[in-house]
Amino acid sequence: MLSNLFENGTESARVAWSRLPHSDGGELDEAGLLSTTTSDRNGVESLDYEVIENYAYREEQAQRGRLFVIYNAAVKWFFALLIGIGTGLAAVFINISVENFAGWKFALIFNIIQKSYLAGCLIYILINLALVFSSAYIITQFAPAAAGSGIPEIKGYLNGVDIHGILLFRTLIGKIFGSIGSVGGGLALGKEGPLVHTGACIASLLGQGGSTKYHLSSRWLQGFKSDRDRRDLVTCGCAAGVAAAFRAPVGGVLFALEEVTSWWRSQLMWRVFFTSAIVAVVVRVAMGWCKSGNCGHFGSGGFIIWDISDGQEDYSFEELLPMALIGVIGGLLGALFNQLTIYVTRWRRNYLHKKGNRVKIYEACLISVLTSIISFGLPLLRNCSPCPDSDPGSEIECPRAPGVDGNYVNFYCSKDKEYNDLATIFFNTQDDAIRNLFSAKTIHEFSARSLLTFLVMFYTLAVVTFGTAVPAGQFVPGIMIGSTYGRLVGIFTVNHYKKLNIEEGTYALLGAASFLGGSMRMTVSLCVIMVEITNNLKFLPLIMLVLLISKAVGDVFNEGLYEEQARLKGIPLLESRPKYEMRKRTAREACGNQKVLSLPRVIKVADVVSILRSNEHNGFPVIDHTRNGEPLVIGLMLRSHLLVLLHSKIDFQHSPLPCHSTGESRAIRPNFSEFAKPVSSKGISIDDIYLSSDDLEMYIDLAPFLNPSPYVVPEDMSLTKVYNLFRQLGLRHLFVVPRASRVMGVITRKDLLIEEETESSATMELQSTSVRGQRHERENGADIERPLLNGLLVQRQR
Amino acid sequence: MLSNLFENGTESARVAWSRLPHSDGGELDEAGLLSTTTSDRNGVESLDYEVIENYAYREEQAQRGRLFVIYNAAVKWFFALLIGIGTGLAAVFINISVENFAGWKFALIFNIIQKSYLAGCLIYILINLALVFSSAYIITQFAPAAAGSGIPEIKGYLNGVDIHGILLFRTLIGKIFGSIGSVGGGLALGKEGPLVHTGACIASLLGQGGSTKYHLSSRWLQGFKSDRDRRDLVTCGCAAGVAAAFRAPVGGVLFALEEVTSWWRSQLMWRVFFTSAIVAVVVRVAMGWCKSGNCGHFGSGGFIIWDISDGQEDYSFEELLPMALIGVIGGLLGALFNQLTIYVTRWRRNYLHKKGNRVKIYEACLISVLTSIISFGLPLLRNCSPCPDSDPGSEIECPRAPGVDGNYVNFYCSKDKEYNDLATIFFNTQDDAIRNLFSAKTIHEFSARSLLTFLVMFYTLAVVTFGTAVPAGQFVPGIMIGSTYGRLVGIFTVNHYKKLNIEEGTYALLGAASFLGGSMRMTVSLCVIMVEITNNLKFLPLIMLVLLISKAVGDVFNEGLYEEQARLKGIPLLESRPKYEMRKRTAREACGNQKVLSLPRVIKVADVVSILRSNEHNGFPVIDHTRNGEPLVIGLMLRSHLLVLLHSKIDFQHSPLPCHSTGESRAIRPNFSEFAKPVSSKGISIDDIYLSSDDLEMYIDLAPFLNPSPYVVPEDMSLTKVYNLFRQLGLRHLFVVPRASRVMGVITRKDLLIEEETESSATMELQSTSVRGQRHERENGADIERPLLNGLLVQRQR
Repeated sequence: MLSNLFENGTESARVAWSRLPHSDGGELDEAGLLSTTTSDRNGVESLDYEVIENYAYREEQAQRGRLFVIYNAAVKWFFALLIGIGTGLAAVFINISVENFAGWKFALIFNIIQKSYLAGCLIYILINLALVFSSAYIITQFAPAAAGSGIPEIKGYLNGVDIHGILLFRTLIGKIFGSIGSVGGGLALGKEGPLVHTGACIASLLGQGGSTKYHLSSRWLQGFKSDRDRRDLVTCGCAAGVAAAFRAPVGGVLFALEEVTSWWRSQLMWRVFFTSAIVAVVVRVAMGWCKSGNCGHFGSGGFIIWDISDGQEDYSFEELLPMALIGVIGGLLGALFNQLTIYVTRWRRNYLHKKGNRVKIYEACLISVLTSIISFGLPLLRNCSPCPDSDPGSEIECPRAPGVDGNYVNFYCSKDKEYNDLATIFFNTQDDAIRNLFSAKTIHEFSARSLLTFLVMFYTLAVVTFGTAVPAGQFVPGIMIGSTYGRLVGIFTVNHYKKLNIEEGTYALLGAASFLGGSMRMTVSLCVIMVEITNNLKFLPLIMLVLLISKAVGDVFNEGLYEEQARLKGIPLLESRPKYEMRKRTAREACGNQKVLSLPRVIKVADVVSILRSNEHNGFPVIDHTRNGEPLVIGLMLRSHLLVLLHSKIDFQHSPLPCHSTGESRAIRPNFSEFAKPVSSKGISIDDIYLSSDDLEMYIDLAPFLNPSPYVVPEDMSLTKVYNLFRQLGLRHLFVVPRASRVMGVITRKDLLIEEETESSATMELQSTSVRGQRHERENGADIERPLLNGLLVQRQR
Repeated sequence: MLSNLFENGTESARVAWSRLPHSDGGELDEAGLLSTTTSDRNGVESLDYEVIENYAYREEQAQRGRLFVIYNAAVKWFFALLIGIGTGLAAVFINISVENFAGWKFALIFNIIQKSYLAGCLIYILINLALVFSSAYIITQFAPAAAGSGIPEIKGYLNGVDIHGILLFRTLIGKIFGSIGSVGGGLALGKEGPLVHTGACIASLLGQGGSTKYHLSSRWLQGFKSDRDRRDLVTCGCAAGVAAAFRAPVGGVLFALEEVTSWWRSQLMWRVFFTSAIVAVVVRVAMGWCKSGNCGHFGSGGFIIWDISDGQEDYSFEELLPMALIGVIGGLLGALFNQLTIYVTRWRRNYLHKKGNRVKIYEACLISVLTSIISFGLPLLRNCSPCPDSDPGSEIECPRAPGVDGNYVNFYCSKDKEYNDLATIFFNTQDDAIRNLFSAKTIHEFSARSLLTFLVMFYTLAVVTFGTAVPAGQFVPGIMIGSTYGRLVGIFTVNHYKKLNIEEGTYALLGAASFLGGSMRMTVSLCVIMVEITNNLKFLPLIMLVLLISKAVGDVFNEGLYEEQARLKGIPLLESRPKYEMRKRTAREACGNQKVLSLPRVIKVADVVSILRSNEHNGFPVIDHTRNGEPLVIGLMLRSHLLVLLHSKIDFQHSPLPCHSTGESRAIRPNFSEFAKPVSSKGISIDDIYLSSDDLEMYIDLAPFLNPSPYVVPEDMSLTKVYNLFRQLGLRHLFVVPRASRVMGVITRKDLLIEEETESSATMELQSTSVRGQRHERENGADIERPLLNGLLVQRQR
């Protein structure tokens, strides 16, 4: 089979050559859906040095030693600091911009409607349209990967699926300015999801030392060559994003842990925690600075977004029933939301978005106009209610003064002492609307009819808006929807249990938690985020119970929003739990009847080219022969490393013998950074490499460049076990080999406990009563040999 | 080598026989230190069915099918519910008991000292002595494994080190009543660590359906045969313990995640979360019930233990310096605490505790008397301070009314309007003392001199008390110590920044966080716990920063408290990160020059006995031959399973041929539960099995009972990679085998993605452009064979 390939190999002679490929890509269409094929290169890179693990690299590492380890750790912490500062600043920038656009917009409209409601409506529609158009334009023309929330993509990246384009500099820019436009334009979407993506982008760009395309690279910072380090940075970035979006540092850590990452190490927790703390400090500093009025409409507001700590003091057990009801509603509406968005996304992908970018912009603009008309028009149809008799001590004014945020909006009311409850939530920024829905001491502010109207309209808008070509988060819309029906349930509860001290705002909070739980299916992180954004710990057990119910109800119908979206986008996530069917299959069956393409140790360049062109495999077993002529698998060679070798040509040799035995002077490779996978480019393609016919007649000795010990599994191992190995270790390639003929040793826990101190070794001594525990013998034994590859192998016979 | 063993085998003829061994053990001495050898059986059981994975078991599982899976899941959730209720009730019971003992004690003493301080002192000493004596007596005589906090042991258990005795019913009883005695007796220790252990015990006992010794077993509940299920339950129990101890449900989940477990699966998070929520509900119900005065001295008190939400509203950046100082002090004092406790524990182990149980009781009593004298005597020496001018609106009385908890204790004061600040913290329950230290609006209540005196004395007492033969947690003492120096720093800050609105209580809180961070080195979980117990989210960023500093400072000196204690106790924890030295070693070297004892497929009973007696290995490779006579490793046989086979004798056969080819009628094993490892007994020993000489001449076919596909690594794999495999998958045995001669297939991500819906398979189709993605061919292909063991093997030639 192999020789067959060799014969065909020389036919492919001249291949086009070019410099490095472009660092920005168009593999994603603008809605972020994978429209082209994602080939094998979407596979997971090993987390464990696999990418650049080969003998030479290992020697280099060993020389650098412990000092390098310390330096590396210091750089990582410094990066965590930078990510925290960067994400914090980005969040502050987005927040200030959105609040100023929206604040200025509403102030203007309230001024105009004193004279003419029609003019106000038109100008309102136009302003929103302009903002949304700018956002959609940026996304479609400049940064297609910045559409949507980005969380499914980041989740995929951290699961090992390398979607091209999601962590580029232009994506970052598109995300920041796009979400200012889309959120400021009043669409039914939030800025929190995009902030997570923003954090991830910042982290990734820092990790590669800036964008290569925009010449921001700095050699000093390019220390993050291993995929694991990059993923760690992106994890930090996600946590920073959530921490900045909700001003919830602990929630950020937990979100990264529970929702985003696939592999988690306890060391990472500590660094992520640090990043979140930095974000908290940055946001706090910025908000302290804004308090003195430097930020325009973004003036007041503390570290906690929707403070309800002055709400309901206690709850009775009679209330558990309506609260459970909220959980059930949340589960149902959340699952329905997920299902509807699947249909809408699929329809968009199959019909609408095939027609090009122009249609996408039209679509976004249409939805903007629709949203503006509904949010302006519906409150007009609603009769105003008279203001409640205000307590003398109460700080809540009715109606609120013009130009001030708050409850009791006077909108199209005939009398002075009246307010429009629908306008209070609909014709307002989402943050203020949520604050009003959560607010305590405002019983009967909202009528059931207004809430129901708002719920239906906003739910529909949120479903329709989901998937347009603008950056869009689902947190804030979810909180809006949830708190609306929560407050509805609250109204009925207040009416039913008249004697109790019940606040409708509490129910709104629980409703928000339940909808997010029913849609996103998060638990601990969502719980902590809800507590952190409302500053009320008393309801923690209630939030937990509501989340439990809503997640359980939602799980009956479908998967979480992010998983569903990831699947729709063709991101093949490896779940942490193996599928049930795998129990009955073996490793051999999983491979099917694939042909395995093995390489010999010293291979002709022409053959390499031929093999690389004949298939799309990313890893090739390398096989050599022992002195007895028996074949022996000596390692795994990655396609990308072969391409680097072909591209650099340094390691070509004239002789078909292994390099160390030929005596040929070989140029020493200056460093191995070439082998590191580029973050934001597609890497070298075989078609980009030019090789002369002289080159093609030369040989490469692969031994110094291969990964000498990839993980292996015996052929009839249960696929469940194979899956666990593959998933837990984050592998990319796993060799299926025949059963071994003998066992050379059995490794148990004791063999892996390397003592560090005399004290602990004394303790260990006590335990080493078994035969194999006799460490001293072993360490003094003369027969310890380093089974190095070269000693084991002889020159190949051709 | 093998034949050699076979020849010697028949010599060991008759071995003593007994029924099942006792389910309680004495391997641990009373301080919880391993005094005897922990043999290989302390190794980790595989998390992944390895224990009872063999063909017959797998068939049984396959027959049960999906319904069984659902039933199993339902049982797990039901158990989570039971664990929550059980741990909640245990916590409530301990709390009520301690509060009543302590409340009654202090009420009595305050009555007596109205007449005579000497009599009061004596009675105080005697009551404490009686309580501590009872605790020490219970521990030494009845439940030695219940000494100490139990967290290092639980951590070890979840890491895979099976320390005998820590999860017994008697340990549970000892822990509950012992900690009532030790905490009620006023020692410098807390009840929170023991509550974690209590939760773990409850979980483990539920998992095995009650204690086997005390005849509480229920067949229906004995569904948790796999070690993984048991560990999951114990994890739930730990979370429940923390949730109950601190009334901090989210903190409990995070504690289990960050500090206790070694393997974490996202499904588990969800169940642990549920357990914590149940605990929160149970504790709340109990406290609602207690509010009506049914619980004696345990009367008031909300869900939050030390509510400081009415404290400092804001903080300025000038305060960051003293706060950072607190972090540094916390790191230093915490690391010192860890170091001192190491010395004390080592000294105790080497000198004191060798002298027997009597000495341990004496020691505990001596420390009790010492503690009583100091906490009663030192406040006597302190001059009383005049009460501050109270605000008319303030609720804080000075001095407090007799029989009421609160600040400003009048103790040995000559005038009426005076209080003794040292007595306020020293001569008080620890909960009240902490509440007083955290309290806001009480600036200048404590003098620097009193705080310093208390700090030195209490720190010393905490170090000395650590390691006595009573249940002892380090959380509350840590909070006491930390809040004392925190308040000290607070005093200086208040004096220095006069204009600012600074509360000393805030600094006390930060001090508490810093000391716990410096000693236990937890991050996120501690942060959440501190927030949950004080109901103040505003200081979250500050707590994070203080923790960062204190942990970083502490890490310079030594490891965390639990890790150090685990090492001292000889619990060999496998850390998540491989050691640096492992990079240069290979799997082969880790095995050393051990002799591998392999078994043939059909083995004579006498040979089994001989092999089992000749060594202490827990796993043996089983080797058979192919039709060509080549040897082939067919699986791993566990010692414990061999012992079960020897014990039951059902599977003995007369012929030395594999069972399926002999036609011999073999008794069908009714179920495989026998192979499950017993939780709380030592299992069968080879010395307990009686075999007649007829039995010894018979044969066993091991094929149905072995684990057919243990994980393997090639001989020259880097030990770092081996470690990752071993640690991440929670293995117990790992075969080191020669390099493979060929690769039968390469498994990549795509091979492990089994589609479930037509939709997603359509998506996948797009991506499957590479050669090996052609799934249809494979699935329709006729050449799919199930490489079952029996088809592969022929009868052994003897």
